[in-house]
Amino acid sequence: MHINKQRLSVFALGGVNEIGKNMYVIQFEDDIIVIDCGSKFPDESLLGIDLIIPDISYLLENKDNVRALIITHGHEDHIGGVAYILRQLNMPIYATRLTLGLIEGKLKEAGLLADATLVEINSDSRIELGSITSTFFRTNHSIPDCLGIAFHTPEGTVVHTGDFKFDLTPVNEQYPDIHKMAEIGMNGVLALLSESTNAERPGFTPSERIVGEHIEEAFSKAKQKVFISTFASNVHRLQQVVDAAVLTNRKLALLGRSMVNVVRIASELGYLHIPEGMLVEANEISRMAPDRIAILCTGSQGEPMAALSRLASSTYRQAEIAAGDTVIISASPIPGNERNVARIVDNLFQLGAKVIYGSGSVTGMHVSGHASQEELKLMLTLMKPKYFIPIHGEFRMLHQHSLLAESVGVESDNIFIINIGDVVDIENQVASQNRKVAAGNTLVDGWGVGDVGNIVLRDRKHLSEDGILVMVVTLSKTDGKIISGPDIISRGFVYVRESEALIDEANRIVKDTINQLQAQNINQWSSLKINVKAVLGRYLYEHTGRRPVILPIIMEI
Amino acid sequence: MHINKQRLSVFALGGVNEIGKNMYVIQFEDDIIVIDCGSKFPDESLLGIDLIIPDISYLLENKDNVRALIITHGHEDHIGGVAYILRQLNMPIYATRLTLGLIEGKLKEAGLLADATLVEINSDSRIELGSITSTFFRTNHSIPDCLGIAFHTPEGTVVHTGDFKFDLTPVNEQYPDIHKMAEIGMNGVLALLSESTNAERPGFTPSERIVGEHIEEAFSKAKQKVFISTFASNVHRLQQVVDAAVLTNRKLALLGRSMVNVVRIASELGYLHIPEGMLVEANEISRMAPDRIAILCTGSQGEPMAALSRLASSTYRQAEIAAGDTVIISASPIPGNERNVARIVDNLFQLGAKVIYGSGSVTGMHVSGHASQEELKLMLTLMKPKYFIPIHGEFRMLHQHSLLAESVGVESDNIFIINIGDVVDIENQVASQNRKVAAGNTLVDGWGVGDVGNIVLRDRKHLSEDGILVMVVTLSKTDGKIISGPDIISRGFVYVRESEALIDEANRIVKDTINQLQAQNINQWSSLKINVKAVLGRYLYEHTGRRPVILPIIMEI
Repeated sequence: MHINKQRLSVFALGGVNEIGKNMYVIQFEDDIIVIDCGSKFPDESLLGIDLIIPDISYLLENKDNVRALIITHGHEDHIGGVAYILRQLNMPIYATRLTLGLIEGKLKEAGLLADATLVEINSDSRIELGSITSTFFRTNHSIPDCLGIAFHTPEGTVVHTGDFKFDLTPVNEQYPDIHKMAEIGMNGVLALLSESTNAERPGFTPSERIVGEHIEEAFSKAKQKVFISTFASNVHRLQQVVDAAVLTNRKLALLGRSMVNVVRIASELGYLHIPEGMLVEANEISRMAPDRIAILCTGSQGEPMAALSRLASSTYRQAEIAAGDTVIISASPIPGNERNVARIVDNLFQLGAKVIYGSGSVTGMHVSGHASQEELKLMLTLMKPKYFIPIHGEFRMLHQHSLLAESVGVESDNIFIINIGDVVDIENQVASQNRKVAAGNTLVDGWGVGDVGNIVLRDRKHLSEDGILVMVVTLSKTDGKIISGPDIISRGFVYVRESEALIDEANRIVKDTINQLQAQNINQWSSLKINVKAVLGRYLYEHTGRRPVILPIIMEI
Repeated sequence: MHINKQRLSVFALGGVNEIGKNMYVIQFEDDIIVIDCGSKFPDESLLGIDLIIPDISYLLENKDNVRALIITHGHEDHIGGVAYILRQLNMPIYATRLTLGLIEGKLKEAGLLADATLVEINSDSRIELGSITSTFFRTNHSIPDCLGIAFHTPEGTVVHTGDFKFDLTPVNEQYPDIHKMAEIGMNGVLALLSESTNAERPGFTPSERIVGEHIEEAFSKAKQKVFISTFASNVHRLQQVVDAAVLTNRKLALLGRSMVNVVRIASELGYLHIPEGMLVEANEISRMAPDRIAILCTGSQGEPMAALSRLASSTYRQAEIAAGDTVIISASPIPGNERNVARIVDNLFQLGAKVIYGSGSVTGMHVSGHASQEELKLMLTLMKPKYFIPIHGEFRMLHQHSLLAESVGVESDNIFIINIGDVVDIENQVASQNRKVAAGNTLVDGWGVGDVGNIVLRDRKHLSEDGILVMVVTLSKTDGKIISGPDIISRGFVYVRESEALIDEANRIVKDTINQLQAQNINQWSSLKINVKAVLGRYLYEHTGRRPVILPIIMEI
């Protein structure tokens, strides 16, 4: 697809009308910059699929023009696609130190690190790539080292906020660059892309600091072991757990691969400060006085294989929860995870634990990392953009965000709620949206990237509901008579030992059908198959109310 | 199983440690009374299963002693199993008029109505069945005509609350029988079984009446059509919608089978009062002035085939939502349904509708039908039971309810948190829990009740993740040589047209394996199968990262 000269274009290959799998593109003339490269987990309708990443056909078609991939921060929905997509398109990656640290781990595992170009940036960086100069501003979020980006182009400035909140009392004293944001706004913003995750939520998201106070209080009150589960990547939260443990004279053990991993990276890079001698190994927990130990673990979303879930079901080898122990779930369940988390809470109560769970606003054990409505209005007010494109969210969030933009003075006609692939073009300072680029989901299943499509998924769905029934029969090539079979084998349909009569009768029906067709001189392989399938399907539905996949296999010898 | 004389026993065959599928049993000597007979929908792990009902093995083993099935109210989790279970055990059913009306519909559809014994009761009824006398008290809930039950036995009185809240300003003026509850408590309650659904929720659940005020306000403000979606069975809510339509001079159309059905039954039985000439047919909606019509529809839980979902995706033939119309979702999503509801809200916003959605406490468009903590304490205080068994809820709710009971003076040792099948026996006024009866889930799939078990489900799960690969080969009976095949057919594994090389290579490997085995004189059918399966499985996993079900079929002729 050819892009006209002197046209500034903005679009998404992921991250609008959905959560996760973020990928945005800014293009001026022949200079393309990609922002973020996320992944997301499939919902239950995508059977057997492991991961969803963006469809980058557009980038592959224009690979000579792709100047950089800039990553705003190190969450999976912003970096999770890197190890898959770099294999197809080796773009130079620009990101802050912690974000690069997390990406390096992924690239190493995928064997792509040696060939990758990784450039460390910070909020003072200035990157000139062709006609686009990128500058940055520091934001707050539930992981350190987050950036918003200002793209300065000959047509004007486009700002991408990344994920953000305004935490005016941040844990690590990395204050948001409000003055810089104000300056960018003063100099004129042609278009603002701002995140919409919490656009439905009134008010101002509380500071991360209040969580630390509640953790410290719970640690002080606990008379035995304290388990606390949170997202490993929430390094500020981890720091507050470390601080609470120090204050209450407890050592700290780490459970869960990603927790151990992030603590190592964040400590090495100076984002997490753990006093020497404070960490103990998991197998030491049982030997310590219960009021001298705290345990930081993964699994706050109820992931069945993570540490918390295994602790709750007493299947974690190295540690166990005793009656009277305290368990803190320092997270809110992401929509879809409620039932898994609830199951764990049930199990924890059955073990006799004191469980602190539920919405963060009730327990004080969690705050969101995303801007609520008043903060979104603050960002819009600071940037005072001519054009506004709400990003990161499902349609209702984008819609609510657009109402907020209108409320602070953005012209309603200047707001574009786009879907992935919809291009907003700005020429002579006038924006329009009337073309599309290829965009969609690339499905990852096992080693396969993009090889599972609708037909395979439809078959899996059908198989999952009523199973499969394979009918094999061998016919003679010469006279078409049955030489062997029919034999019927099923999986996931009925329990065969209790359904012998059903299967026997099905066999008989197939035999009769074939013989009848032969008698009518209907010998074509395809006619036989279609007829057998129809007759068998009808019989099975009448007797079971189920419609298994029917696979007639006719061998001729 | 033999029950000793003079023993009062209480247990659950469904409805503790889970939501839905309620069934409780009270037994004194040889008199068994069953309370409720519910169904619930399976979670996504039970692939292809349509419904879950209680396992009634215990009742079947003791069928001569089963005196009655008493139903507390007409919700699916209390009546949904009736049409399945009556086929196996035809108990006389006692219920209030509306509840019976709803049950009759189910029995008629199942062809069981003619043989059923249905006895209408009300809160003044008194039923003597063997040694057990049952009396009743009226409660409030999100469906009219709900009862709590007091079972008077020689050993003492057992109270089962059913689902309840205390609505002191009820819509239909059916006030809760507080004085009767107080009297039962005064006379002494040996054991209380009280529902726990909202035991985690502080405070006092608001009256249904406040929802009516909000509906009326929204109807008044709306300048075009108003769509409102709620549970069809919430007849009080329906009445308030009717009233709001009358007040704002709108006619009313009904969309969705269960809505039409419940409105008919509730109107006929006098629970719902709709002025004559007020209802219009769905196909008249488009011909009416938009500010003169309201539409009451099903689908408030985001059910994909229900009216609201089809309206939102513009696939409802007889009605459509125009930009500027108002859509009210008068319900809270049940855990697990959040994403489906959110998808509908997205679609409604895309149509340009004004959508009133989200938690009832924010919009005022929904209140719970279940007692919050203060009401649960009120019930416990009124009944002042010696023994307490929290029911209707997952473990954490039962646990929280037990803490509430302790807080109002029930002895901690006198509280039994049971699982299904756990029996609480009371002899000489002393309760103990140390035996079990058979209990569990009976799975309904198509016409099959209980014929799908773990093996079938495990196969469906496996099929759903990586599909199936069938390998057929015909061998000669005489020398074991390959006569035809091997042929490989797959479903849900890879898209075959793009994977020809993979399948060809798999064919070659199978052929080589069989030939090698033959050369070693390994001819047994089972050895061949096991070897082919292993070799093929390894090859496929190495090349795809997937582990499909492999079905080797070896024909010998």
